[in-house]
Amino acid sequence: MNTAPLRIAVAGLGTVGGGVLKALQTRGGELAERAGRRLDVVAVSAREREKPRAADISGIAWVDDPSALASADADVVVELMGGEDGAALALIEAALSSNKHVVTANKALLARHGARLAALAERSGLALKFEAAAAGGIPIVKALRESLIAHGINSVCGILNGTCNFILTEMEKTGRGFADVLKDAQALGYAEADPALDIGGGDTAHKLALLSSLAFGTVPDLEHMHVEGIAAIMPEDIRYAREFGFRIKLLGVARRVGAGIEQRVRPAMVRAGTPLGEASGAFNAVAVDAGEAGPFFFEGRGAGAGPTASAVIADLVDIALGSFEPAFGKPAHTLTPLVPAPATDASSAFYLRFNVLDIPGVVAEIAGHLADAGVSIESMLQRGRNPGEAVSIVMITHDTPQASVTRALKAIARSDKVLGSPGVIPMELG
Amino acid sequence: MNTAPLRIAVAGLGTVGGGVLKALQTRGGELAERAGRRLDVVAVSAREREKPRAADISGIAWVDDPSALASADADVVVELMGGEDGAALALIEAALSSNKHVVTANKALLARHGARLAALAERSGLALKFEAAAAGGIPIVKALRESLIAHGINSVCGILNGTCNFILTEMEKTGRGFADVLKDAQALGYAEADPALDIGGGDTAHKLALLSSLAFGTVPDLEHMHVEGIAAIMPEDIRYAREFGFRIKLLGVARRVGAGIEQRVRPAMVRAGTPLGEASGAFNAVAVDAGEAGPFFFEGRGAGAGPTASAVIADLVDIALGSFEPAFGKPAHTLTPLVPAPATDASSAFYLRFNVLDIPGVVAEIAGHLADAGVSIESMLQRGRNPGEAVSIVMITHDTPQASVTRALKAIARSDKVLGSPGVIPMELG
Repeated sequence: MNTAPLRIAVAGLGTVGGGVLKALQTRGGELAERAGRRLDVVAVSAREREKPRAADISGIAWVDDPSALASADADVVVELMGGEDGAALALIEAALSSNKHVVTANKALLARHGARLAALAERSGLALKFEAAAAGGIPIVKALRESLIAHGINSVCGILNGTCNFILTEMEKTGRGFADVLKDAQALGYAEADPALDIGGGDTAHKLALLSSLAFGTVPDLEHMHVEGIAAIMPEDIRYAREFGFRIKLLGVARRVGAGIEQRVRPAMVRAGTPLGEASGAFNAVAVDAGEAGPFFFEGRGAGAGPTASAVIADLVDIALGSFEPAFGKPAHTLTPLVPAPATDASSAFYLRFNVLDIPGVVAEIAGHLADAGVSIESMLQRGRNPGEAVSIVMITHDTPQASVTRALKAIARSDKVLGSPGVIPMELG
Repeated sequence: MNTAPLRIAVAGLGTVGGGVLKALQTRGGELAERAGRRLDVVAVSAREREKPRAADISGIAWVDDPSALASADADVVVELMGGEDGAALALIEAALSSNKHVVTANKALLARHGARLAALAERSGLALKFEAAAAGGIPIVKALRESLIAHGINSVCGILNGTCNFILTEMEKTGRGFADVLKDAQALGYAEADPALDIGGGDTAHKLALLSSLAFGTVPDLEHMHVEGIAAIMPEDIRYAREFGFRIKLLGVARRVGAGIEQRVRPAMVRAGTPLGEASGAFNAVAVDAGEAGPFFFEGRGAGAGPTASAVIADLVDIALGSFEPAFGKPAHTLTPLVPAPATDASSAFYLRFNVLDIPGVVAEIAGHLADAGVSIESMLQRGRNPGEAVSIVMITHDTPQASVTRALKAIARSDKVLGSPGVIPMELG
């Protein structure tokens, strides 16, 4: 067993990098016991050298150009710079080519280049680890890669973006609109100045691509993925959801449908009182249907120095101990291209909200179009009367293919009694 | 990297053993890909050779005496016989002495002999793995051993016995008494013919000892553990719990209190709507407070062929890949004896139910004794009037040391207005 110190080079000293250094400095002895050897940070690189930081970097070699870390006298490069190409990708490729293990929290990069980088790592017997890239501190990457492997996975369903979950929770608590709450979240530091990647679903998509690969042994795939964000969610949708006993969550769902895999990021109605429905605020949660092993549920903080540093350090200790499985659980050359499930095979119940003129016949007309498309209604709600003016009609459908709903909505949109765009949110049951 | 098949000997072919063989037979190719080598069962032993089984054992060497598996031509011995000493212990010791890795689901044995066996394994660079020993399919052993290690654990709190959770859930659903529901659970196969270990809390205690060791780096310790079962829970306690918005769960809790560790197995009131409060039926659940990494929650099936086989197979694949950390996360010689927290330091709110004669002054008398002992009341409930006859009075206290409650109850027991034993259940808040 190797007992020489594991020499670590860290690129990026933001929230996560600072948290990693701090934990290594304050809990070094304990971690060395677990790892069987010391974990020494020997070199760091970041945008600014002088800056107040959670950890002391005075005794560590400073490198201005992060790509130089690939040739540092180190065993592992920890990439925490972000960015799906450019400097981060160059550093990881150079590190693997220079016989260095890599730990990264970079979901965008891995969702695009993960399979190729995994192959590069395996050719040299190196580790490529990324626990911090999905669901923050929740050890879901390890669970899918190493634990829930005996029976095959049927589905993975997660709340993977803390910013969106915080905004949706705030909208429910306060009754306020999306744009308003987003502004607050930005002021509080819960949302980025440019929030597009979070609220548009892109960040969730990156994470889902990784979990999907781990679950199904497929190459991470962003192409065959339906991605919708939360910007269209109206306060009344959240209110109606509550009346029906549901909450609206931005879910990343990957599941086997027939011979293919369906990957979707979209807001969905999740039953209140279920673990997923109760995961609120900045928490992340992942539900896994592991076949005969049954359903599993994992919850924890999705972001922040503590949770993400916890994930990075677990990866480093694994590397120190010499336990490195293939990055995606199976050797990279055995990962198969993802075969998308035919869109027609995917079905669920739907929540539909229409703004309509409160005049006789409007419900009959909508119900008629739904019936024509083969969509049957499980329950309907019309609150308040406002003759001749706009009111909301809310319906929950029975299980129905997405395509049928789309067909019905097209016909309904042509009605002059229906105003604006409908609210359309799938129900995530079970 | 070792690519020769991993040769596996299995002792015990009950539910778990049968599930392991079945999964290896039906998913052998997939698992070999993940493990980098074939997983071959080369020898088995069980009480009866001829018996209908989930898996085909016709091509596998049969051994009548399980201890002979230690000298089989195998790399790993999987011990699934059970029993805290005797044949199981002899087999594990012999296997480790014969240079074989060991996988076991035997919590009773590990809670007593785990540290010594871990040391024995480490001396020869062997793995001793036991994911299936606690919380069934939930990968909580791996999570505590390898993932939640960066910041130190403050507490672990689990619903660890599916039989008890099933009984308590049924009692709540049906309003029936403990003895009645237990009989049904036995008829359904959810409870053993001799249910003492489950309902008395002993099984939960074994599992808690293991989780506590993993969380705190201590030698598994059954001595310093308060253990109470669920037999004294009355249907009215469950009913009142519900009125207050709680559920009664048998919890195993290990937490840092001051400089010591408190370990308790006892029924507790858990808030409905929280993940732990909603974990029902045969499910297990574990909540971990991992300091700066935040709170984590894990849920899954606690027993059965699928979940436990999933755990055993994850251990086998780890061994095949050569990734074996010390059994309890740290080298056995660094595990410290558990220092118990002084009983006086442990405090919580309590639910108290008294059967009293419905005569003037009885509430005042009880309240007086509580006040004398320094126990203050947060809320009180008295349903129905029955002058001169027995009625229930239910109280929830503020946070208070267990010792104060004990003192008050002693005084109250001397009152001739109070009938029978009170119901005393701590509240697990947060």
